[in-house]
Parts: sequence; C-alpha cells; structure tokens
Amino acid sequence: MTSAPPRMRSVLWKDDGLQIIDQRKLPGALVLQRCDSVEQVKVAIRDMAVRGAPAIGAAGAFGLAIAANAFPRDANTTVEQFLQAIATAKADIDDARPTAVNLTWATERVLSELRRKAAEGMSVADLVPHTLVTAQALAEEDVDINRRLSQHGASIVKPGSNILHHCNTGALATVDIGTAIGVIYECHQQGKNIHVWVDETRPRLQGARLSAWELMREGVPMHLIADNAAGYLMLSGKVDVVLFGADRVAANGDVVNKIGTYKLAVVAKENKVPVYACVPTSTIDLTFKEGMTIPIEERNAEEVTCIGGVRIAPENCPVFNPAFDVTPNQYLTGIITEEGICYPPFEESLARAKAAAEKRMQQSLL
Amino acid sequence: MTSAPPRMRSVLWKDDGLQIIDQRKLPGALVLQRCDSVEQVKVAIRDMAVRGAPAIGAAGAFGLAIAANAFPRDANTTVEQFLQAIATAKADIDDARPTAVNLTWATERVLSELRRKAAEGMSVADLVPHTLVTAQALAEEDVDINRRLSQHGASIVKPGSNILHHCNTGALATVDIGTAIGVIYECHQQGKNIHVWVDETRPRLQGARLSAWELMREGVPMHLIADNAAGYLMLSGKVDVVLFGADRVAANGDVVNKIGTYKLAVVAKENKVPVYACVPTSTIDLTFKEGMTIPIEERNAEEVTCIGGVRIAPENCPVFNPAFDVTPNQYLTGIITEEGICYPPFEESLARAKAAAEKRMQQSLL
Repeated sequence: MTSAPPRMRSVLWKDDGLQIIDQRKLPGALVLQRCDSVEQVKVAIRDMAVRGAPAIGAAGAFGLAIAANAFPRDANTTVEQFLQAIATAKADIDDARPTAVNLTWATERVLSELRRKAAEGMSVADLVPHTLVTAQALAEEDVDINRRLSQHGASIVKPGSNILHHCNTGALATVDIGTAIGVIYECHQQGKNIHVWVDETRPRLQGARLSAWELMREGVPMHLIADNAAGYLMLSGKVDVVLFGADRVAANGDVVNKIGTYKLAVVAKENKVPVYACVPTSTIDLTFKEGMTIPIEERNAEEVTCIGGVRIAPENCPVFNPAFDVTPNQYLTGIITEEGICYPPFEESLARAKAAAEKRMQQSLL
Repeated sequence: MTSAPPRMRSVLWKDDGLQIIDQRKLPGALVLQRCDSVEQVKVAIRDMAVRGAPAIGAAGAFGLAIAANAFPRDANTTVEQFLQAIATAKADIDDARPTAVNLTWATERVLSELRRKAAEGMSVADLVPHTLVTAQALAEEDVDINRRLSQHGASIVKPGSNILHHCNTGALATVDIGTAIGVIYECHQQGKNIHVWVDETRPRLQGARLSAWELMREGVPMHLIADNAAGYLMLSGKVDVVLFGADRVAANGDVVNKIGTYKLAVVAKENKVPVYACVPTSTIDLTFKEGMTIPIEERNAEEVTCIGGVRIAPENCPVFNPAFDVTPNQYLTGIITEEGICYPPFEESLARAKAAAEKRMQQSLL
C-alpha cells in the first residue's frame, strides 16, 4: 500500500475565477487553465479541457458564479433581471455537452437555490455572493458523494482482483477522488492488493492519457491495454470485475457512458465477469425510462483521424464518431452509488437511491 | 459502381529482388521498399513493413529465392548444402512472426518442392532458378485463391448491406485482391450497393491506415470508426454482417486473428449479426485442435503508448499488448475459403475444404 501524494483539484474556485486542470494536455504536462467568463467556461467544457460528468457539473456551477459576479449590482437592476441573467448563462453552459446530465443537474440546482432565496426576499446584492456559496457547496458535496460511493464500491471487490476500467472516472473526472477510480483508490488504500487493466479508450484516449496518469501517481499497480485487448483478457480469465462510470443512467438502469462501454459489458457478461457502473445519483435521470431514447452526442472526425496532431487516416476519410453508447441494463450486475449498490430490478433500486439522495440533499440545503 | 484504378502489388519480384509496399508509411505516403537479402526480408516481416498473412507468406517465399540466388554455384557446393542453406534461411524467416501460419506454410512449400526436385536429380544450377519459379507460382496462386474466395464470399452478402470490417485484409495484406476486403471488392464490383464500417484496429491502426486507404482508392462507400463504436452500431441495427481475416484457424474453427476480433464476434452474436472469417485454406492449421493452445505473439509497449511518434500515455507506463486473440468457433457463422464456405460443424467442413485445396495443389504442382 503506497501513501498517495496530495491530489490537485480538477475544478477549483481561485482568485475570483474558475481554475481547471486542462485535461487535454495530460499526461505530457500538468497545465492549469483559468476561466473568467461564462464563454470561457462553456468553451472549456465543450472542448473537453474539463471533462467527466461530476467535474463538468461543478465547472458549470462555478460558471454561474462567474455570471453572477458579472451582473451589474446598481439600483436599476432587479432580482428578476438577475435570475434571467443566470438562466441565460445556464442555458448557454448546458448547451456545451448535451448528453451529460450532471451539467444540467448542477446548473439547475444553483438556479433553483437562487430562485428559492429570491422568493424569500434575498436582494441582488446578496444573491450574487450566494451563487458562489452554492457552487462551492455543490463541489464539496461531490467530494463527499465520491467518498461514500467509493466505500460502497470497495465492498464488492475481492482481494487480489484484476479490475478492468474504461475511460477516466478519477479525480480528474470529478471534483476529487472519482467514481469507478474512486472505488479503485479505496481498494488500494484498504490494501486489497488489486491490479487494474486500464483500457486506452479511443478515440479521445482518456484511459491512456488520464487514468494511467492518475493511477501511476497514486501507485496503483496497472497495465495499459488497447481497447481491443479487453476481450482476450476476459476469455483468458484475467479479469475479475469491470468498473466504469456513466454520463447518464435511465430509470430502468440502462447506462449511457463513453463509447465502448456496451462492447465491454456484453463480453463481460458472456464471460461471467461482473460489471458495475459507478455513479453519483445525480447521474440517474428518471425522466428517461430507458437508454436508447437518450440523445447521443456525435463529435468531430478529427478525434478519430488525428492523434496529437498526427494524421492516422487518409485525407477526407468519412468518419462516424459517436461519443457515447447505451448499455442495456441486462448487462449490468449492479450500479454503485453514494447511497449504496443498486441491483436489479433497477427501476426500484435506482428510485430508492435517488429518493435517499434527494432526502439528504433537502436536509443539507444551504 | 466505380471502376477501380489499377492496384499495385504489395509483394512483387522485381530486378532480382523483392519489392514491397512499406505499409507503415501508409496512408501518408506510398513508399516502395527493396529487400535484397534474407535479413532484409526478415526485418521487413518482423517490423511489419509487409504484413497480412498471405502477403508475408509470399514475401517469405521470395526471401528463399533471394537465399537461393546468394548460394555459391561452384563445383564445391552440393545439393545437400543448397537445401541446408534454404532450410536455414527458412527457419530464420519463419521466426519473424510466430503466430502467422501462412509464413511457415509458404516457406515449407518452397522447401518441399526443392527437396522433391533434388530427389529427382535436379542440380544446384537448376535448383537456384527453380526456387524463384516456385515462389512466383505461389504468389500467382495466392491471387487466384483470393479471387475464388471473394466470389464465394460475395454470395452471402445481401444487396445494400452494411459490412463491418476489422484490421486489414485487402490487396495490401495479400499478394493482390484480399480476403475479407476481397469479398467487399467483389460485392462492390457486382453493384451490390454496400457500405463498409472500417474499424481503426488499435493498436497498429491497420483499419484506419490501410483498409480506409484501399477502400477509398477503389471508391467503396465507407466510414471509419473507433473500434469502440462497433457495438453501438450493432445495437442500433446498422451492421448486417461482420467480415475479417485470420492468421490461423484451428481444426475446430477457432480463429486466431488481430486483437479485438473476439470482442467483435461476441457482440455480433449477441445482436444476431452474422460473422464470417475469410481465409485461404492455407490459414487452416489442422495440427491445432482448438484455438486457445495456439501461441499468441506479444508486441512491444510503444505500439500502444506512441502513435506516429507522439506519446499518448505516461512515461514508463506498464503495457500489455497481445497482437492477436482467439475467437472460439461458436461465435462464427461461417468460414469463407477459396474452396467454398465452411459451416458448423467446422471439424468436418474445414477438413473437407483443406482436402479439396490439397488436391488442387497437387494437380497444379510445378
């Protein structure tokens, strides 16, 4: 068991602005980027300088704090105008990543809190700083959620396990700790003697660039593999459990996550390897009954045809590049949340977890 | 239907030496490389300047012609010494790619033919040019085999099909035409209005670099995808058939092919999408009863951590990089060969195809 070096927060409020780790520069360089306008926050989310469902949720919330600070606080501005300005900023930011439910969820929570306080009579002068306070609370809450989620998750990992992990779900993808990688950290810290197969996660290589970097930094034993090698490992009996995060989970437990998750889950089931999605309950979207109706973001061709500026495909090569896929609930053993582990039938267990989280949220309201 | 531009042979005897297309330079540049020594042939095969089971078989055969030409033809040399020199060169070349059965098969055929002629009393002076004649015949035979295989294969592809293809199995991977891509060419030329999903095939990107280049050159409608996107396409009903080649097929129909094939085949079966391996019968190795006992080549870490000289993973990142995987026969709908399409039970159908090919080979012996 290696003691972990102090981690840097991927999303941090600093000097009246948002500081993020520019994840596109990793693992070559650890570059911090400032966002001082809503537009900068939007671009950072859209272009994936900041990525990972909980991390972009927190970034979006801090984006609203930036919008609040930019709002003119003179006698001519009304509370209605302030709320309208925040709602406009929210719509603008939400638009940056249409599939990630956490972004909309986080910005909605900030806006709801402001509307509530406004209804209670809070002035624009007080609403402005309260926006930041709310965003800060949301970020701290994310860290706490990941801690609890990780502890629940560690309970299903047997000592000596080989864990296969997809994409990046670590401290970089959240405010701190992580979801599926949070579970891995927790197992490592508990001395469970685990080993991780980190798949590279084409096309954006979040596994190779980010998860490998995080796990090596924390001293977790791991090997990087091409996504294509995962099946061979499972067939050879070298994978004990598959862990990943999610960008959205439907009411029935269908999981929308990084492209490639579906293939992994099908092959895992075929090999009787348990499969768990690790998500904060905020990722569960009960408004979607099932996953195939959730819109899937398509990204540009260059993500596939160019790597680090090097062209790997012919010029003008047509490309299809969906960012996510849908894993139907039948391929999941369980869904690990901060409220515990949900098992089939997911309609019931997810609704229970969601209700528990909402009760806790109400109790913790600022 | 677009008329195809003339193709260049990937493996060609020219000016007393072997000329290959350096496939590592594609799609950026079409570079021809000469091999004038056994060592150069070995390195070209080992470092995958030439790749694809039938192409390296032909390259290996021409390598023996180079060895023959280099053999001293004076009064002091005996037929036994000549055969020993060719056997040494064969062992040297075979060693370059341990998993590909075609290489050993092709060099063995040349050596057997020379032994037969020597037994019939052929002199060193005649055995030397006969080595090249044999290699040439083997290369022409490969073209003919691919033509017949492609015609058989086209019969199972319905008009308007979306074909998913893994790795590269085209004219580059063979002497000409190709195996799975040969089937695709044949369908295209028959006006079947097909479309191809070309998966990029990490880590070496043979799909993105080679198959996309070949298909675009021939005007076949296609889209490049990350390997991870294949499952989503199948789940969405956008794949009608999966085609790939193989490096070795066991007696029971288990297929050893480029890493990632197994994952594809499992997900295809789950989605009721038919899966065919397209192989010359020389790829069928009846000495292996089943696939999991076939040795799998592991290649170096840089194939995963670097792309075109750009590092995509942390320094010193541990990597596991198997070049091939095993697809158990239960995931295959059929195996398309030059002798027709083999269906389960594969033990019988493959043995029949192999016997038919051997009969044909005996009739065509030089």
